[in-house]
Amino acid sequence: MASQNPTDAAASGAAAPTTLPDRTQNPADNQAGESKNAAKKAEKAAKHAAGVKTEGKKEAKKAPKKKVDGAALIGIDASKEENFPDWYQQVLTKGDMLDYYDVSGCFILKPASYFIWEEIQDWFNKKIKKMGVKNCSFPLFVTEDVLQREKDHIEGFAAEVAWVTHAGSTPLEKKIAIRPTSETVMYPYYSKWIRSHRDLPLRLNQWNSVVRWEFKNPQPFLRTREFLWQEGHTAHLTEDAARKEVLQILDWYADIYSELLAVPVVKGQKTEKEKFAGGLYTTTVEGYIPATGRGIQGGTSHGLGQNFSKMFNITVEDPSAKPGEQKEPLHVWQNSWGLSTRTLGVMVMIHSDNKGLVLPPRVAETQVVIVPVGITAKSTDEDREKLYAEIDGLVTVLEAAGVRVQSDKREGYSPGWKFNQWELRGVPLRLEFGPGESAGHFVTTARRDIPGKEGKSTLPIADLVSGTTALLETIHTDMYNRADAEFKAHRPLITNWDDFTPALNAKNLCLVPFCLQMDCEESIKNQSARKAEEESGEVTDAKAPSMGGKSLCIPFEQPEGIEPGVTKCINPSCSNFAEKWCMFGRSY
Amino acid sequence: MASQNPTDAAASGAAAPTTLPDRTQNPADNQAGESKNAAKKAEKAAKHAAGVKTEGKKEAKKAPKKKVDGAALIGIDASKEENFPDWYQQVLTKGDMLDYYDVSGCFILKPASYFIWEEIQDWFNKKIKKMGVKNCSFPLFVTEDVLQREKDHIEGFAAEVAWVTHAGSTPLEKKIAIRPTSETVMYPYYSKWIRSHRDLPLRLNQWNSVVRWEFKNPQPFLRTREFLWQEGHTAHLTEDAARKEVLQILDWYADIYSELLAVPVVKGQKTEKEKFAGGLYTTTVEGYIPATGRGIQGGTSHGLGQNFSKMFNITVEDPSAKPGEQKEPLHVWQNSWGLSTRTLGVMVMIHSDNKGLVLPPRVAETQVVIVPVGITAKSTDEDREKLYAEIDGLVTVLEAAGVRVQSDKREGYSPGWKFNQWELRGVPLRLEFGPGESAGHFVTTARRDIPGKEGKSTLPIADLVSGTTALLETIHTDMYNRADAEFKAHRPLITNWDDFTPALNAKNLCLVPFCLQMDCEESIKNQSARKAEEESGEVTDAKAPSMGGKSLCIPFEQPEGIEPGVTKCINPSCSNFAEKWCMFGRSY
Repeated sequence: MASQNPTDAAASGAAAPTTLPDRTQNPADNQAGESKNAAKKAEKAAKHAAGVKTEGKKEAKKAPKKKVDGAALIGIDASKEENFPDWYQQVLTKGDMLDYYDVSGCFILKPASYFIWEEIQDWFNKKIKKMGVKNCSFPLFVTEDVLQREKDHIEGFAAEVAWVTHAGSTPLEKKIAIRPTSETVMYPYYSKWIRSHRDLPLRLNQWNSVVRWEFKNPQPFLRTREFLWQEGHTAHLTEDAARKEVLQILDWYADIYSELLAVPVVKGQKTEKEKFAGGLYTTTVEGYIPATGRGIQGGTSHGLGQNFSKMFNITVEDPSAKPGEQKEPLHVWQNSWGLSTRTLGVMVMIHSDNKGLVLPPRVAETQVVIVPVGITAKSTDEDREKLYAEIDGLVTVLEAAGVRVQSDKREGYSPGWKFNQWELRGVPLRLEFGPGESAGHFVTTARRDIPGKEGKSTLPIADLVSGTTALLETIHTDMYNRADAEFKAHRPLITNWDDFTPALNAKNLCLVPFCLQMDCEESIKNQSARKAEEESGEVTDAKAPSMGGKSLCIPFEQPEGIEPGVTKCINPSCSNFAEKWCMFGRSY
Repeated sequence: MASQNPTDAAASGAAAPTTLPDRTQNPADNQAGESKNAAKKAEKAAKHAAGVKTEGKKEAKKAPKKKVDGAALIGIDASKEENFPDWYQQVLTKGDMLDYYDVSGCFILKPASYFIWEEIQDWFNKKIKKMGVKNCSFPLFVTEDVLQREKDHIEGFAAEVAWVTHAGSTPLEKKIAIRPTSETVMYPYYSKWIRSHRDLPLRLNQWNSVVRWEFKNPQPFLRTREFLWQEGHTAHLTEDAARKEVLQILDWYADIYSELLAVPVVKGQKTEKEKFAGGLYTTTVEGYIPATGRGIQGGTSHGLGQNFSKMFNITVEDPSAKPGEQKEPLHVWQNSWGLSTRTLGVMVMIHSDNKGLVLPPRVAETQVVIVPVGITAKSTDEDREKLYAEIDGLVTVLEAAGVRVQSDKREGYSPGWKFNQWELRGVPLRLEFGPGESAGHFVTTARRDIPGKEGKSTLPIADLVSGTTALLETIHTDMYNRADAEFKAHRPLITNWDDFTPALNAKNLCLVPFCLQMDCEESIKNQSARKAEEESGEVTDAKAPSMGGKSLCIPFEQPEGIEPGVTKCINPSCSNFAEKWCMFGRSY
């Protein structure tokens, strides 16, 4: 019973008994696991779900259609290869990362995912604080007036702004917006606070949530109406100082992906068409989801130039002015940069498999789980106690070394069932410990990232700490390298237009020679969408065929081969020469 | 020019020149500090302020009335003793803790205050995580349906709930609330997630902001429409386990006040009248603001009992049931506990003085500032460079020891001006270092908490680290002890009703024998309000005289003297016997 929708379960009378309590599944599934009490709950939950749904039509979409009769299954019953959307949803909910919420587009970040977000916060806070960035907190609300101060900027957000109009039953004098981002919230105060060039650079950051009421189909972590992020907003005296920071932040964003999440990204600059509304230029880290062949924007660091400082009158006197000399005041150079919980979605989509989550070891809340094995009907209580005591010892030793470890000594669950559950939750490394291991002074190791026998080995107890920490690092590196190889294999250089859409259909992002012009980019997107529709048939991603290829970034690392004034733009209906290799693809 | 309202400055043509750039004041003040550019800004700021004000009438209140002509003053020009509200506002804004925002009741937490909040977060996270609490993130929004599930609870919040009704220009099908607290947001999911007694205790916490659209006059940190806090929500199998946690959390709240903020609090239980709406009992830490003689609730830890678990159907099967035996399912015992940025307001109100902020050293972002002194017109560049190099050395040594230190080598500012500025910002310890100190191998120390000569001393360079860290600890202890002595001196035992209101008027909280009955409590409040009005005249806090004394808590630490069945309740119109000493007072 894989349905996300509690009503399905209630309707089909999900009360079939099962021998194993199940804490990993969604409520509908779980009804099967307990008796009368649980059945009542199912009914209540169903009523609840029916009653509070705010946008029922959309909600329905997220419920996987396939049903499995009989006892609840602990595992994922949708395949990553065949039914990616259902797979993704199940991996998240059964892996205890996230739960759906009764306001569409909003999700609950459960401790397993929030822990990873905290790890990202800690890491990034250390970096930015050392650079002189300070954390602060600006209000959630913004007035209509201020929100609309920068026209290009608000155009990018206006349709998605959530408006508060009432407090209790009292209408507000003027409606108030919930921030979709904080440029216009913060910059009036930058104008107040920045009195002199000595106040520069001003570097503030906040960890908060913003609201963008998108009407497209929501997707956990990737497209949500409220999401957690950090937003940095800085002001500098010179363009050069601002640019250095933009690139430094982008490097750290890339590091968060590669060093913490074991995810490869391509660093580059957005085209004019895709840059941040109201900014001067946007740099980005772009990821790749192999299962769908789509690109995904991973985090952006914007050079805002002087557009906002002119709009909000953020100026300082020219420090080069001599005493008494009148010089025009200088508008500051601003940046803004943001990274969101989308990171977690990208991580899950890339690494996880049909057994569930696969978490990168550096950020996994539980890095190692120790499962007792080999306890049989013939084992005495003494045998068991001795084994458990030894396991406690292993835990103590690993904990002391800073490894996040737990043991699973629950009674009434078979080792196999436990293995499945910890695999579902993505714990990077399992240690098995039974009488055999005890006698031989070793532990059996099983890597989450390499399923089956290939991922199993042994480790002498004498090397427990060094071996475990080394193995965790190896897992990280291997996860990164596999994802990196996959990404590299799927970003071919395409110079012939006829190869473009077939390459997209073969789940590639494409590096193409491109003139960088906005109308040409639009034309490429439209043509590839049409072409893809004509040629489609073999692509598993249902929505992809009709989706055109859009520019993802102009990679900083440019391959050779573009000769100025010689190489043509890839678009057959464009007469311009190519300026750069640009990465195009279908995207999230 | 102390006005908070930018229009005042613009109207009075605030362009008087001053020799010192001023980064500490509010925008109106600061217009004086810069030339043409600044004057233009002032005008723009004034227009801005006039244009975006959402609730002009209320906003006007927060602008101090008193004006000072001529050059901008760096310091506080309202006295803590004579004009507490203006003083508080100036200490916060000029001390760089906070700025006012153009949505009434919302405030900007600047880095100096947010740093302290982060220190509180770090400290509390360590404690609760060790206990098994996990952080997570629930959505900002809640449906009307779910919000209203628990009737008593919603009654406590209904009038203050902010409602989102539109996204862009599209009306929502159903209006959606912004959480005023998360009980009803979270508990439907507790019902889903808690399947078995093995899932207990479930302990979740989140650091977020909530919105309560109060219509009373807002006050920074103390009463704000959006505020930051943590809210812990836990579920337990037994009442006893739940109660243990309630008290453990309360102890940690008290520790945050005493160990981090150097603020004494009284631990106790709220009366039935003052307990959390929908809960079983509420424990609290109560603080005391000497300047106004009012009590202030500092943080609450609620035992919710089974009320919410019955409402939201959060049950487990009875673990004492034998296989096959049918027993009634058990409703879990729940707690919720919250601590907010109000902590920062209490800290400021208690410790700060007429020179500005006084920050407790354990949480101050800058614990030590080193100011060069004794550089005169006769000093050579060489002299200066030598001194600065030595100061850099002191910084390095202190930083290596984990002291948060900075030096102030700005040119063009006199040492006296710098002293004032760092005092305004509340840096706990100033080290002065000049040629005399250099020659004598010592630093001059000046404590922020003891103004003037009394707080000055010297410290041999050889003892720099040990001396500095010891002095910071002494400052913490002394700050706590002074505040504690003041609190103790202002919570007399009052057994005679005639002494009650005079004691309130003399800025006391009163411990009185009390019957604990709700109607009696109401009667005490009303009678003391009337009485106070008759007798008023000598109280500086303008609002206090008409404010009755309400119950703050029943302190855990009960003085002797109440004899069951003998001691009468203090209320002359009450015929009950006293049950407990209860702390009454005027309060925030």
